Amino acid sequence: MSVDVAGLTGRLLDGDRRALARVLSWLEDGAEPLVRDVVARLHRASGHAHLVGMTGSPGVGKSTLSSQLVTEWRARGRQVAVLAVDPSSPFSGGALLGDRVRMQEHALDPGVYVRSMASRGHLGGLAWATPQALLALDAAGFDVVLLETVGVGQAEVEVASVADTTVVTVAPGMGDAVQAAKAGILEIADLFCVNKADRDGADRTVRELSDMQRLLPGLPEIPIHRTVAAKGEGIVELADAIGEHRDALHEDGRLTERRRSRARMQVRELALGVVRERFAAAAGGTLFDELIDRVERREVDPYTAADRLVEALEG
Amino acid sequence: MSVDVAGLTGRLLDGDRRALARVLSWLEDGAEPLVRDVVARLHRASGHAHLVGMTGSPGVGKSTLSSQLVTEWRARGRQVAVLAVDPSSPFSGGALLGDRVRMQEHALDPGVYVRSMASRGHLGGLAWATPQALLALDAAGFDVVLLETVGVGQAEVEVASVADTTVVTVAPGMGDAVQAAKAGILEIADLFCVNKADRDGADRTVRELSDMQRLLPGLPEIPIHRTVAAKGEGIVELADAIGEHRDALHEDGRLTERRRSRARMQVRELALGVVRERFAAAAGGTLFDELIDRVERREVDPYTAADRLVEALEG
Repeated sequence: MSVDVAGLTGRLLDGDRRALARVLSWLEDGAEPLVRDVVARLHRASGHAHLVGMTGSPGVGKSTLSSQLVTEWRARGRQVAVLAVDPSSPFSGGALLGDRVRMQEHALDPGVYVRSMASRGHLGGLAWATPQALLALDAAGFDVVLLETVGVGQAEVEVASVADTTVVTVAPGMGDAVQAAKAGILEIADLFCVNKADRDGADRTVRELSDMQRLLPGLPEIPIHRTVAAKGEGIVELADAIGEHRDALHEDGRLTERRRSRARMQVRELALGVVRERFAAAAGGTLFDELIDRVERREVDPYTAADRLVEALEG
Repeated sequence: MSVDVAGLTGRLLDGDRRALARVLSWLEDGAEPLVRDVVARLHRASGHAHLVGMTGSPGVGKSTLSSQLVTEWRARGRQVAVLAVDPSSPFSGGALLGDRVRMQEHALDPGVYVRSMASRGHLGGLAWATPQALLALDAAGFDVVLLETVGVGQAEVEVASVADTTVVTVAPGMGDAVQAAKAGILEIADLFCVNKADRDGADRTVRELSDMQRLLPGLPEIPIHRTVAAKGEGIVELADAIGEHRDALHEDGRLTERRRSRARMQVRELALGVVRERFAAAAGGTLFDELIDRVERREVDPYTAADRLVEALEG
């Protein structure tokens, strides 16, 4: 089967959703030359979307909140894409499917595009194809791309590393505030959203999030919003806050700075990926194994072995 | 202040605990030439300890369990080191301190050495100095080195990647079993320990852990142990199981295989670290920035930029 990359990416750029779906599947499959070709063709058209990350523990109501935000953005005339990444084992397929069902109220709206991705073996982190998928959705012309993920450790950090604005959602009475603090969430949240804010304990959760921040006075204050997503309460204000965060980033130059640091990270990771392959191939694929044998026999220490590997690469 | 690396590592190898403490501080500080020198000197003496990883959510009773295991190992004549890594924010200093207090029953026993390390900015993962610290404790002659960490996402995976035997501890009624499944724990646990097994729901937790495994039939069965650490119940059996796991690994060659794969990973990571620095320094430190500028201006895509970076390294 031959693959018409130029044709399909061209149609993607023209707004063809079926072409987008196909390209996203390629990116998810991750066959190297194809991914490179796609990225090279789409990169030029990217950089316009507002990339919004949404994370939080299971049960805080992320999906309902996302769906309500999509409704609000649509009412404001925005084209919206939702990328849902499930950073967990084969086990959670069911939960993710359940979440997606709730997005079905937008199924007939051509201004909304919803896509799920599994993380497949990338334990505790986002799917490795996430940055490329965001690039494709951005290039496809969406005004807002919402990246939604269950907050487990590494995935939360990664959401923040690829999003312009990161919303961390918690719910009352789940001990989330404390857990959030433990995961270093203050360093990655741009906005807190206390969902299910009509429940007992909402005030306490807000207070905990606020108190936590006072313990780390060096960081900028993170606004705390209250929503009851199931009733549509607080959504307008949250959407406003997300927009204002982007505007503020844009005005004070932090948007450029964040995107620049994201580009640095991406280019470095890609380059390191190339180097990793060269290491494996060094001296016809035998050098690495020989070095490891010698490390195992304690004839050479790991640092010295690493130096030899780099020397081989430099020829 | 001049630093006598040869003298201090020599005393460490002779069993001097103060020398060990000093060396661990160097490793934690991470000053590069010093770390290299220490590792080069200690590597040869390492490889004898049984590295046991213990992970689990806050509140499952990990510290009490660890302390009881230490007691049991001591009764069996083993020299034991405990390395407690807290993979969370500045916030959890208190909790960690509380944990350590419980280890104080071993404070006067010269056959037990306890050390805590913070993870400092390495979000959701272990402290980066963990492998080096394990190496030092191993070289210092301990028979068992217990690496204890709070299970949050990435840290759990990393524990498994540095340990010979990984014990995942859960407690009844915390929804841990389901959470554990979500974090892909089946792929990293060698043993499950259901602690607080005298509580309601213990049977259910055991059943959940067992059912989970049936859903992924490809993997080897993970034994499930019950303990009541606070009363010392089930500790002998757990210590037996940990020892048996190591023996089985040793006999069927998996110990060598695991340690080899660990060495591969470590050497590769160190080599990539060297390469990362070379990237930053490429063309007098300007090439990387120039490439990122061009990526930002959409003149070049990230893959092409990565290739240019690798080409510069290869001269």
